[in-house]
Parts: sequence; C-alpha cells; structure tokens
Amino acid sequence: MKVIAYWLAVLGLTGGMVFTRLPPAHAGGASDPVFDVKLPAGYRDWRLISVAHEEGDLNDLRAVLGNDIAIKAYRDGTLPFPDGAIIARLAWKYVSSEENNKAFGRSQSFVTGAPTNVQFMVKDAKKYIATGGWGFAQFNDGKPLDVARLAACYACHVPVEERDFVFTKYAP
Amino acid sequence: MKVIAYWLAVLGLTGGMVFTRLPPAHAGGASDPVFDVKLPAGYRDWRLISVAHEEGDLNDLRAVLGNDIAIKAYRDGTLPFPDGAIIARLAWKYVSSEENNKAFGRSQSFVTGAPTNVQFMVKDAKKYIATGGWGFAQFNDGKPLDVARLAACYACHVPVEERDFVFTKYAP
Repeated sequence: MKVIAYWLAVLGLTGGMVFTRLPPAHAGGASDPVFDVKLPAGYRDWRLISVAHEEGDLNDLRAVLGNDIAIKAYRDGTLPFPDGAIIARLAWKYVSSEENNKAFGRSQSFVTGAPTNVQFMVKDAKKYIATGGWGFAQFNDGKPLDVARLAACYACHVPVEERDFVFTKYAP
Repeated sequence: MKVIAYWLAVLGLTGGMVFTRLPPAHAGGASDPVFDVKLPAGYRDWRLISVAHEEGDLNDLRAVLGNDIAIKAYRDGTLPFPDGAIIARLAWKYVSSEENNKAFGRSQSFVTGAPTNVQFMVKDAKKYIATGGWGFAQFNDGKPLDVARLAACYACHVPVEERDFVFTKYAP
C-alpha cells in the first residue's frame, strides 16, 4: 500500500515525473476526469501563496502562486475555493549556490536551477464535480501532460479534503 | 578572514540574525550609510523573482519578490537596476511537512513555518551612492533594524558587483 500511495503522491502532489498509463480502452470513458485545462495566461505574474522544497527524486524548489480569486480566498479563509480560482505550482531543480556559499563562508545555500514543470488546479465545482471541483493540469516546457496521466491527481489530494483538497497553506 | 566573511554574509545576505553594533560615537557619522528605507506598502503582492533555501543557523525557506520596476529590469536584463527598483526577501522557518510526507509515503517535503524577517534593497543611485546605489533594510515583525546594524550589508554584496550587487537571479 505504501508503494501505491507513493506513486499516487508523485503523480498527484508533485507532477508526475513517473506515472501509470490507463489502458486505452479506459481512456476517455465516462468515469475519467474531464480535464481540459489550458495553460493560464500570465500565471508567472500571479501572487505568491508559499514556497517549498522536495527532496528525493523530485529534488526541487517550488513556488505556489495564485490568481486573484485564489489569493483572495486564501486571505479571507474562504472554503471551498470559489469557481475561477487557479493555483499554480512552479518548480525548479534544487541547486547548490557556490556564489552564495562563498559569501556565507560555508556550504548552506540552495537556489533555483532549470525549471522542471508547472502544475495547475482550476476550480469549477460543476465541471469537475467528480474530482472535488478541481481540474488538474501539468505542463512540461509548455506542453500539456496527457489527461490519462492526470487521472490519479485527485486521489492524492483527498487527505486534505477539509481544506478543499489543497495542500499548500498561505505563507504570511 | 573566513570568519569575518561569514558574519558579514549573515548580516548582508540574509538579514542579520547576528550583528555587530558600531560604537555609538560612530553611529550617524558621515561615513555611515544613510539608510532610511520604510517598509514598502503592498510588498507581499509583488511578483516572484525566485526562491531559495538556507541551511545552518538561518534554516529557512525564502522568496525574493520585486516591485514592477525591479521585475521589468530583471526580465529585460537591465543593469544597473533603475532608480525605484525594490527587491524584497521574505523568509520563513524551514519545516518538515508530515502531511505531505504521508502523501508521498516518505520523508521528503519541507514547507514554510513562521515568518522570520523581511529584507529590502531599494535602488537610488544618488542617495545611496556610497553603497552601490542601494539602500538596505530589514524588518522584524514590521519593526526596522537599527541603521547601524545594516552597515555591513553592502560589503557582503560587493562580490556580485557585476550584477549590480544583487545575488538573486530570476527564475524563469
């Protein structure tokens, strides 16, 4: 179970560096999530929700940004998030900074390297009713991940259902 | 020298958890930097430049944000930064996330805890001519650090003079 949970987590929480394909006969079936999320324009300009670091295979530094609707909901404590809220997770390779370490006089500083991928959660309570009202997406170099590869996202977010399936908390 | 470089770095790069007071007779003297930076309104809404992690005594996750002038300069590659550019460094304690680790099935996830302090670099080439055109500030719980405590900030930034004394690079 732990192994299954791990891969679900890799897929759902962090963006599917590894994933399981659904059998073709299943793809597009009535029970599949209907994710049709496009790359939101201007998301790199959105405001900051929080930052994080993942060790392990992901080995990244990440920033979570929100569009205006998401930021307002976070700050007001509105749950569930209103339709139109979008949460973006950007990530970059976790890189030691020799330049900073030199300034500090010891090895302690880690900064962003090359970008890895970008993920989104888009709130539409009716459209995405089967997945907690959230549509999921991931883009690698601007290219969307196949919908079949996003099928497990929701399952991973169920443990934080009481926060409307959103892991990241707002950093004051 | 390494020890001196370290404390200068703690002060200048990361926000003075530890600092050396100048003797009172020296404070306010002609050779002191004239830092009078006020807490910029609305800085929490600024756009993201990059994120980082410091180990050691700092043990934080940090986000570097920029006001519109700073972000435009970063994206255009404008050096030196134009007057009015402000760069903000927010930081929070580095905290293991049990919730995320459970989802991943292993211990790998670090998120933001309580905020530590906020630092600013404000560009005014004429006003701050003695310190590379930058005024430095730090706020703990909204309260500014004594100017005397900021005296070493500039020295620490000299190694990146070719990037107009700014360590953080823009994360695409």
